[in-house]
Amino acid sequence: MTSAPTLQPKFLPSKNELGLVAVGFSGGQCKPGVDAAPMALIESGLIDQLKNDLEFNVTYDGEVHAYADIMPSSDPDYRNMKRPKGVSAVTKRLCDQVYEHASKGRFVLTLGGDHSIAIGSIAGTQKAIRERLGREMAVIWVDAHADINTPETSDSGNIHGMPVAFLTGLAKEDKQDTFGWIKDEMRINTKKLVYIGLRDVDVGEKKILRENGIRAFSMHDIDRHGIGKVMDMALGWIGQDTPIHLSFDVDALDPQWAPSTGTPVRGGLTLREGDFIAECVAETGSLVALDLVEVNPSLEAEGAAETVRAGCSIVRCALGDTLL
Amino acid sequence: MTSAPTLQPKFLPSKNELGLVAVGFSGGQCKPGVDAAPMALIESGLIDQLKNDLEFNVTYDGEVHAYADIMPSSDPDYRNMKRPKGVSAVTKRLCDQVYEHASKGRFVLTLGGDHSIAIGSIAGTQKAIRERLGREMAVIWVDAHADINTPETSDSGNIHGMPVAFLTGLAKEDKQDTFGWIKDEMRINTKKLVYIGLRDVDVGEKKILRENGIRAFSMHDIDRHGIGKVMDMALGWIGQDTPIHLSFDVDALDPQWAPSTGTPVRGGLTLREGDFIAECVAETGSLVALDLVEVNPSLEAEGAAETVRAGCSIVRCALGDTLL
Amino acid sequence: MTSAPTLQPKFLPSKNELGLVAVGFSGGQCKPGVDAAPMALIESGLIDQLKNDLEFNVTYDGEVHAYADIMPSSDPDYRNMKRPKGVSAVTKRLCDQVYEHASKGRFVLTLGGDHSIAIGSIAGTQKAIRERLGREMAVIWVDAHADINTPETSDSGNIHGMPVAFLTGLAKEDKQDTFGWIKDEMRINTKKLVYIGLRDVDVGEKKILRENGIRAFSMHDIDRHGIGKVMDMALGWIGQDTPIHLSFDVDALDPQWAPSTGTPVRGGLTLREGDFIAECVAETGSLVALDLVEVNPSLEAEGAAETVRAGCSIVRCALGDTLL
Ligand SMILES: [Mn+2]
Ligand SMILES: [Mn+2]
Ligand SMILES: [Mn+2]
Ligand SMILES: [Mn+2]
Ligand SMILES: [Mn+2]
Ligand SMILES: [Mn+2]
Repeated sequence: MTSAPTLQPKFLPSKNELGLVAVGFSGGQCKPGVDAAPMALIESGLIDQLKNDLEFNVTYDGEVHAYADIMPSSDPDYRNMKRPKGVSAVTKRLCDQVYEHASKGRFVLTLGGDHSIAIGSIAGTQKAIRERLGREMAVIWVDAHADINTPETSDSGNIHGMPVAFLTGLAKEDKQDTFGWIKDEMRINTKKLVYIGLRDVDVGEKKILRENGIRAFSMHDIDRHGIGKVMDMALGWIGQDTPIHLSFDVDALDPQWAPSTGTPVRGGLTLREGDFIAECVAETGSLVALDLVEVNPSLEAEGAAETVRAGCSIVRCALGDTLL
Repeated sequence: MTSAPTLQPKFLPSKNELGLVAVGFSGGQCKPGVDAAPMALIESGLIDQLKNDLEFNVTYDGEVHAYADIMPSSDPDYRNMKRPKGVSAVTKRLCDQVYEHASKGRFVLTLGGDHSIAIGSIAGTQKAIRERLGREMAVIWVDAHADINTPETSDSGNIHGMPVAFLTGLAKEDKQDTFGWIKDEMRINTKKLVYIGLRDVDVGEKKILRENGIRAFSMHDIDRHGIGKVMDMALGWIGQDTPIHLSFDVDALDPQWAPSTGTPVRGGLTLREGDFIAECVAETGSLVALDLVEVNPSLEAEGAAETVRAGCSIVRCALGDTLL
Repeated sequence: MTSAPTLQPKFLPSKNELGLVAVGFSGGQCKPGVDAAPMALIESGLIDQLKNDLEFNVTYDGEVHAYADIMPSSDPDYRNMKRPKGVSAVTKRLCDQVYEHASKGRFVLTLGGDHSIAIGSIAGTQKAIRERLGREMAVIWVDAHADINTPETSDSGNIHGMPVAFLTGLAKEDKQDTFGWIKDEMRINTKKLVYIGLRDVDVGEKKILRENGIRAFSMHDIDRHGIGKVMDMALGWIGQDTPIHLSFDVDALDPQWAPSTGTPVRGGLTLREGDFIAECVAETGSLVALDLVEVNPSLEAEGAAETVRAGCSIVRCALGDTLL
């Protein structure tokens, strides 16, 4: 069924070079198991599919990184954040890893891990894109949640609910070991951020979205317009001439299709809609990096395999697989 | 996630006053258990959500009414109707209860019970609206079924299949103890009635719908146009300047999302579509009353909780809860 | 709920005459059990519904044909095809059976069996339509698969993946006992072929579809446009003045609604979309024949009844049943 993409990418020198980073990290939230996702995705055949069916040259160090060597021995709560130094250290390292691939013109695929890791993957991609092309990139954040709490607005203190705040500069911190390493060249513009699939947004987050004029398509919008129209609007907002980083939280999908995730929310995307979003982004030719996060194979006995399968499907679609 | 509605209602003096009537009545059909729905909805936290999240002042007598004191000792079939006097007595009393709230300008939320109770809730709302505003109201009837059989066209004789016939005057009866109490000022206009979600309509009912030019959107229409367009058409038919009573039968939802109901029918609304309908009606600012009926927690072990949750979700959406 | 269709058919002399052929054949693929489908469909009440609710005069020989008398004693692989002589013999006989009905102006309903049998049903219908009306007919092929492999492009050698190739003449064979009996007057035009529901198409098949300009609506197209628009486009391609043969593979439906089938593929049509397709084709008044294939009641314990019910629903909708 699968066949190699024919599209020439707009912002990559080659259509076949892919860098893969496997991030076995769960410290941005409290449920163990999401660190096992990269291995589950790989064992289900994802890399083979990328190589054989989609004809990518995959640059992969063969390791699911747990980053044990850089985890701080003591990591007390700070500004309401849980494990601030650990998450900061891991995302800083990931930023370097992703930058390494992206600066060489490779498409970067980051397999999480919880969604806090997008601090690293997006910072690394944006830095490289700025250097290579001298421009801001857009981020499409597909998620049930907005993940845009600041440390102060967050109820839980889990950093996987804050990555967008740090990436946009809505949250900042001077301490080097607590996200102080995030520099302007790594940050993204709220005007180039688009959400799809939102349905569980905190009151403080709603305020942030409104006040910053951030473009967000909730499930209500998808029901009103249909996913086809929503993608037209989302991609129209970004424009044809902007590199795109797609950050896909598997909990954007309805629990019917992706039950094995830390914070499932009813009323989500069908698998068809999830694949469709990825396909539409792929069709733009503007995609330069992809995160797939929040698959947690330990949470459901039967649902784990299905969630992994859904994750692989999203990745393949984003990388150019088509039905016809 | 939930936040208080900001919309100013068009036909209510205040946006915060809500009258609640809990109707533990199952006599309009034959399966026991639907009388337990109000308690199940309340125990799952519905009133707290209305008060705390949506900031309503809830006027509620604290009682799930079983109306035992007014049930007739003998209640033989009459004109093919089962329990005619009992259903008549209960709906007459409910009409008074709802009128009491509505005449004071409160939004009225009626938790059923089977759908026969809408005879009372709609009669009471319409009477109060006529007195307060001197006008007819519209009714949006969301249901798998049309519930518009006359006693003569009904196969089953269950009155929960007849409320619309009595409310529109298509069915009439002189006897005071058998719906003879329904006066013109309580009746609704077939031209202001809109159905959504129909998929199991009797042959006699199809004839009634056609002959009276009643606007009805079946599942086929929703598939053809999408729920967004259907709501545009439904609300466009009613117009911006008409108070709306929404009567929501949970069996409009597909059994996948609301299995615990007396007469489930496949091929129904997704929960997303059900919420969307309620959200769109809320957005008009014209909603003055809501029924939620036919949740029957006794029919399914696992499905009961899910059906109750779906019911609460519909109520919250109709009362102004939004995703963003 | 069900009521008799009121539409006058464009290409049949009467709207009430239906010929039924029950094909208990599984030789076009390797999983036993699909031969039991016609009996399961009939036992669930399909014929009664056609007679009583939809008011058809059903001409049916009362037999689920196994064609044991014409099965070759030896049937070695040939040109990569499995059981070539057996499938050829059965479809040739079926072609005669269908022709017998169609030449008398009856609507022909063929209950499979695997999809290889469409070689016979479509050849028979097309031959009769050419004789009765002097014209080509269109085929709407609703399926997860394109079934257009030639013997040479097929991986599996299962002939249920090749019927469209033989019917369009993309695959040909001279030997009389191996589809050599298919004559020009039985063949269909690739320009009058429309696919709906595709999502698992082989690489070789994609090439065939592209090179022959065949109109195909994948699940991606349905997500983009909605099923309402897709049916407008599909029927617009065919035009109002062309007889239509609808060949419906139950695996076009998502496994959620039709799990009991030989080659299920995720991401398929909802039951609502399947019914909608059938309803839209019925509304044209152009439908002259229908296949329902690939129901395999032996594959799932619980899912079998649901799959059979889905199949009956599709048939009823295609034969004019409506919700309102
Ligand atoms: Mn997230
Ligand atoms: Mn999330
Ligand atoms: Mn009802
Ligand atoms: Mn109902
Ligand atoms: Mn198929
Ligand atoms: Mn097929």
